[in-house]
Amino acid sequence: MIETDALVIGAGPVGLFQVFELGLLGISAQVVDALPHVGGQCIELYADKPIYDIPGVPVCSGRELVERLQQQVRPFAPTLHLGQEVSALQPQPDGRWQLRTSTGQAFLAKTVFIAAGVGAFQPKRLRLEGAEALEGRHIHHRLDSLPAHGQRVLVLGGEAPAVTAALELAEAGAAAQVTLLHRKDAFKAPTELLARLQALRDAGRIQVEVGQPLALRTADGGLQGLDILDAAGQTRPVAADHLLVRLGLSPRLGALADWGLALERKLVTVDTARFETSLPGVYAVGDINHYPGKRKLLVSGFHEATLAAFAAAERVFPGQPIHLQYTTTSPKLHERLGVSAPTGD
Amino acid sequence: MIETDALVIGAGPVGLFQVFELGLLGISAQVVDALPHVGGQCIELYADKPIYDIPGVPVCSGRELVERLQQQVRPFAPTLHLGQEVSALQPQPDGRWQLRTSTGQAFLAKTVFIAAGVGAFQPKRLRLEGAEALEGRHIHHRLDSLPAHGQRVLVLGGEAPAVTAALELAEAGAAAQVTLLHRKDAFKAPTELLARLQALRDAGRIQVEVGQPLALRTADGGLQGLDILDAAGQTRPVAADHLLVRLGLSPRLGALADWGLALERKLVTVDTARFETSLPGVYAVGDINHYPGKRKLLVSGFHEATLAAFAAAERVFPGQPIHLQYTTTSPKLHERLGVSAPTGD
Repeated sequence: MIETDALVIGAGPVGLFQVFELGLLGISAQVVDALPHVGGQCIELYADKPIYDIPGVPVCSGRELVERLQQQVRPFAPTLHLGQEVSALQPQPDGRWQLRTSTGQAFLAKTVFIAAGVGAFQPKRLRLEGAEALEGRHIHHRLDSLPAHGQRVLVLGGEAPAVTAALELAEAGAAAQVTLLHRKDAFKAPTELLARLQALRDAGRIQVEVGQPLALRTADGGLQGLDILDAAGQTRPVAADHLLVRLGLSPRLGALADWGLALERKLVTVDTARFETSLPGVYAVGDINHYPGKRKLLVSGFHEATLAAFAAAERVFPGQPIHLQYTTTSPKLHERLGVSAPTGD
Repeated sequence: MIETDALVIGAGPVGLFQVFELGLLGISAQVVDALPHVGGQCIELYADKPIYDIPGVPVCSGRELVERLQQQVRPFAPTLHLGQEVSALQPQPDGRWQLRTSTGQAFLAKTVFIAAGVGAFQPKRLRLEGAEALEGRHIHHRLDSLPAHGQRVLVLGGEAPAVTAALELAEAGAAAQVTLLHRKDAFKAPTELLARLQALRDAGRIQVEVGQPLALRTADGGLQGLDILDAAGQTRPVAADHLLVRLGLSPRLGALADWGLALERKLVTVDTARFETSLPGVYAVGDINHYPGKRKLLVSGFHEATLAAFAAAERVFPGQPIHLQYTTTSPKLHERLGVSAPTGD
C-alpha cells in the first residue's frame, strides 16, 4: 500500500503537467497509466505528427511535446506505475481515497487527479468469430507475448506499430515466416521504417498480403490461418500459426464509469474554479472532463491542471494559505525546481 | 476608421496568443498596445529572467517567450498599433464597438479583447515638488525626447533602462556631462551593460552619484539640478540641465475604468465559458480579468484567450456552427497556418 498526497491517473501531457503544478506547490505525486510508456494519446496517435497550437511552441511533434514535459517534470521525479489500469476507488473514513490497479498495486491518496484523456487505451480486437477463444494462445497484441520460434506469424495492421513488429520479427530471425496483412499495399510509417520494410521484402524475409480478414481457419482448437478478401474481390487463405493484431488502440473509460462520478455523455462533470468532480478531493482534467465552454484542447488541460493543483493544495495542507508564487521570482520555487537564482537579482 | 472583426488591446503574451487563436478560427485582428513594442510585462519586467512554468517549455526568458509567440502568430499577420492607449469605447446600433486611441486612430470592431495585463504601462514619475511643471522641458522619460547637445544630463534609476540610457548618452558624446543617480552603487543589468558602464566610468565619461532625490533646484523656471540625500546622510546638490527619469514603469488601468465594465477590485469580471465581460462582444483575458478560482498565470491566460476566441467566432460568423478542429489533422487549419500537410498521411 503506497500512501501519497496525490495520485495522478494518466501519464499523457496533461497528467505530466499536473505533476509539475503539484510539484511547484510542494506536493509529490504517484502516476498510473494503462499504457507501458508515458505520453498517452500524444504518443499513440500523434507521435510523429506536428502540433501547432501549444502557446510558445510554434510547432512540435507529439513525441517532442512529451519529451519536453518529461524534462519539465524531472525536478519532481514522480513515481510511475505503467502498464496498469486503476480499477477500484474506495472512500476512507479520514477523507482519503483507496485505489487499486489491475496489477494489484494499492494506493491511499489524499487527492486523486483523473487525467485519463479519452480513457485507457486498449488494443483494437480482431472481430472474427472464434477469435476470443484463441486470445493469448494464437492471437496476440504484443510482440513480447508471442512465441515466434519456428512459427508462421501473420501481423495485421497498416501503420507503424504493425510495420515495426514485422521488422523486429523478421530481423530476429526466429519465426519460420513473417507476413504482414493490410487492406492495401501502402503503409503509414516513418520513411526509415518503410525503407527497412522494403529491404526485407526484397530479401524475401517479409511477405505482404493485401486484403481484409474474413474468417479464422482453425482445426482441433488450433489456428491454421485466415481467410482474406483480396483486392480482386476473391476469398483466399493465408497460412499462420499465430496472429499479431496491431490494428491500433481504442480508448475506453474503464472502471472510472463505476466510481459514482457525476458524468455527462461519458465525460466527468467538474466546476471551473477547482476542476473537482462530484467526489471531494477527486479532480478531473483534460479531455475527460466537461464544463460549460469546454473545448478538448491541451491548452485548456494545462490550465485545468493548474487550478486543480491549487484546489488540492488546500486539501493537502489544510488551514495553510496557498499563495501564488512565480517561477521567475520565487526563491522557494527555484529551490523546488532545483535551479539557482537568476544572476543580477 | 479601421473596420475589423477583432480588436485586441494589449500585445503581451496573452494578447499575442489571442491573435493566434482568432487566426485559427479565420478571424483577423488589429492589436493596440500602450508600449512602443510587443511583449508587455514579459519584456518590461522579465525580459532576461527565466520562466519555468509554460507547459512544454522547461525554461525560457521573457524575451524568448515573446519571440516564440511572435513566430507562432506570424501566419496571421496582425496589424500592430503600438505606442498608443485605447481611450473611448462606444457601442454602435449594429452591436459593434467604436474605439479611439490616444493618437487619434479609430476602430469599428465586431469583438474587442481586453488583454491589458496589469494595465497600460506608464513611466514612474519623479515625485518632487514642482516636477510636473518641468515635465517635457527639463524632466524626460524617453531618450529620444531629450535635447542632450551640450547639456548636463542626470539619469535617475538603477536598472537596465537607466544604465542603457546613460551608456547611449555617453557613447553618443553630445551631452556636456552624463551622471547616473541611484540609491546605491550597484546596478541591476546584464553583465555586458555593467562592463560598458565600468569602462565609461573609468574613462571619466559617466559619473555615478549615490543618493536619493530630495528636491529640485530651479531658477527662473529652469532647472539647475537636484538636492540629494547621500549615503552618509548628508544633503548635497547635483548639477543638471535635464533629468532623464528611468525609474521603471508602473501599470494603470487607464480609460478602461470608465467603460462601464463590471469590475471587482480593479479587475474585469468575466464568465468562465466565454470570458466575456458585462459588455456583449467585449472579452477580457489574462491578468486583467477575474472569476472564481482565477490565478494570474500565463497558462490560464492562454486558455482564456482560446475560449474567448470560440465565443467571438459565434458573434463574427452568426448562425454558423463553430467546430473544434485540431492543428495536427485539419487541412483547413494547415491552410490558415500556411503549412503543408504532414507526410505519410
